[in-house]
Amino acid sequence: MAVNQLIDGEWVTDAYESTNDDGEFDRQETSFRDWIEPDPDAEFPAEAGRYHLYVSLACPWAHRTLVTRALRGLEDVISVDIVDPYRAEDGWQFTPEREGATPDMVNGFDYLREAYVAADPEVTGRVTVPVLWDTEQDTIVNNESAEIMRMLDTAFGEFANDATLYPDGHRDEIDETIDAVYEPINNGVYRAGFAGTQDAYENAVAELFDALDHWEDVLADQRYLCGDVLTEADICLFTTLIRFDDVYHTHFKCNVRKIAEYPNLWNYLKELYQLPGVAATVNMDHITEHYYETHTDLNPKRIVAVGPNHDFGAEHDRERLAGGPPQSVTARAADD
Amino acid sequence: MAVNQLIDGEWVTDAYESTNDDGEFDRQETSFRDWIEPDPDAEFPAEAGRYHLYVSLACPWAHRTLVTRALRGLEDVISVDIVDPYRAEDGWQFTPEREGATPDMVNGFDYLREAYVAADPEVTGRVTVPVLWDTEQDTIVNNESAEIMRMLDTAFGEFANDATLYPDGHRDEIDETIDAVYEPINNGVYRAGFAGTQDAYENAVAELFDALDHWEDVLADQRYLCGDVLTEADICLFTTLIRFDDVYHTHFKCNVRKIAEYPNLWNYLKELYQLPGVAATVNMDHITEHYYETHTDLNPKRIVAVGPNHDFGAEHDRERLAGGPPQSVTARAADD
Repeated sequence: MAVNQLIDGEWVTDAYESTNDDGEFDRQETSFRDWIEPDPDAEFPAEAGRYHLYVSLACPWAHRTLVTRALRGLEDVISVDIVDPYRAEDGWQFTPEREGATPDMVNGFDYLREAYVAADPEVTGRVTVPVLWDTEQDTIVNNESAEIMRMLDTAFGEFANDATLYPDGHRDEIDETIDAVYEPINNGVYRAGFAGTQDAYENAVAELFDALDHWEDVLADQRYLCGDVLTEADICLFTTLIRFDDVYHTHFKCNVRKIAEYPNLWNYLKELYQLPGVAATVNMDHITEHYYETHTDLNPKRIVAVGPNHDFGAEHDRERLAGGPPQSVTARAADD
Repeated sequence: MAVNQLIDGEWVTDAYESTNDDGEFDRQETSFRDWIEPDPDAEFPAEAGRYHLYVSLACPWAHRTLVTRALRGLEDVISVDIVDPYRAEDGWQFTPEREGATPDMVNGFDYLREAYVAADPEVTGRVTVPVLWDTEQDTIVNNESAEIMRMLDTAFGEFANDATLYPDGHRDEIDETIDAVYEPINNGVYRAGFAGTQDAYENAVAELFDALDHWEDVLADQRYLCGDVLTEADICLFTTLIRFDDVYHTHFKCNVRKIAEYPNLWNYLKELYQLPGVAATVNMDHITEHYYETHTDLNPKRIVAVGPNHDFGAEHDRERLAGGPPQSVTARAADD
């Protein structure tokens, strides 16, 4: 698979999905790691109407930031542009004619890489989503999804509702859970799909399903990953689970079981999908087209699998457990 | 995908899995269509120890002949050799060092195509399994799976048990059912997997699942496809169903549902698998390796998916329905 990297600000063709000598997928580090703070004197102070998200609706990492934005009621505070789901030789692209995609309404760029070069003319690294852009300083604040999620959740004070997803008293557990979910599950599906050897693939699949089995057990008696309260850790798991049966199960060969075969994960997934504002962040056409059409080294004919076409809006049973979503999240239901 | 055709007896590199102008998979006709008859004066008279099957344990078409041979108790009447599951540039090959494979114990050939050329030095067409070989005349009798199945079932008279799979009074229905299952299901999974366009794929998948839905309904009230009695039509469906969840669901993108999600088809599949002699014809390693490793145009990295690893020996519920396997089939249980 060709292309997709900036080296010293120049667009260079290279192997995109790299594996190490053992055939294991190595994910590159992201390059912009500044922080928005709830302090008017900070370099990047929290303000309404100042920050902008570039996302792909296909991408589970970008999806974290959209779900956080929705659950914290930040839709009018932080604007969003959406790239084309198909990532071709020139990387993520703005194609406003595509259903569900937008132009770059902030900078008018055609390609997302232009934002990277605008932020740093000597930038080196992959051009990824999400990107959190500062329209005041015309630069990228951050392009690491977990950090953007955390900023949207914790830095916007009065601009957000009070439904914090990183509550005091749970923060260590939330950080540990995000880490625990990341390697075997969030990145695990990619490690399975992009594995260059049978061993690397089988190890990734074994770790993935061990982790899913573990959280299935946890969710038997507990409403969310960290107990009775909805947290960022749930968002991190959600964006992988919603893609699982339609994409990862087939395209990345994670075909031991479907999420719909895990009663607790499946009901948990439906509950999260049905939280006010969340369904609007899920575009299954963008999701399936991106994966099946972009990874031609896995799917040369670029046929998009039909998939199980789940009804994520179907009834769930999570109300049997203690806890539930914050009132300021559920209160939105009437508006949506 | 390269290779795999004899043209006037010469091995020629060509596109193997051909599609028409609409991107639809076209299966080539088989080339040897003679018949064994229960008549000592026939060109190919039924005899014990005279005929030989070349099969792949991976291939659903070859598998039909092995299941028929088992259910009719012909294991000591008709010998079998098994090719390597991986079909490389030179086509089906004998690799006795491979677990579950055999040498060619009749002719000592290294490649199955040698049998085709030996039978007809000017032969044109694909080199496929199964092949029914006559050790007396040193030629191929037939290489069409449905016809070989029928011959094993009807031509061997006293050499077989009395468990006919083509009983009088049901023959028209059996022929119609074999035809009804063939295009949407047996060949349908290939039409989905080898489709060259999104439309051809989606049409094949829609027809496939419509047909599975139909037979699911039929099997709610009826033990077998043609009623209370086990027939050749069941064998034809069985060899596709047993491969479905591990291969077709992922590799051919037939991922709307798994067979294990259809209660009646799933229990029916387990019943057939558990008939004496049948489990020994199922080699899931040969099945998965063949598909995932041979079709490099679908799976360039040749990673073999782990799959659901079903227990086909688990309890089934088909005894709730009238009918059942013939006594001469079930009587074997004690021997196996």
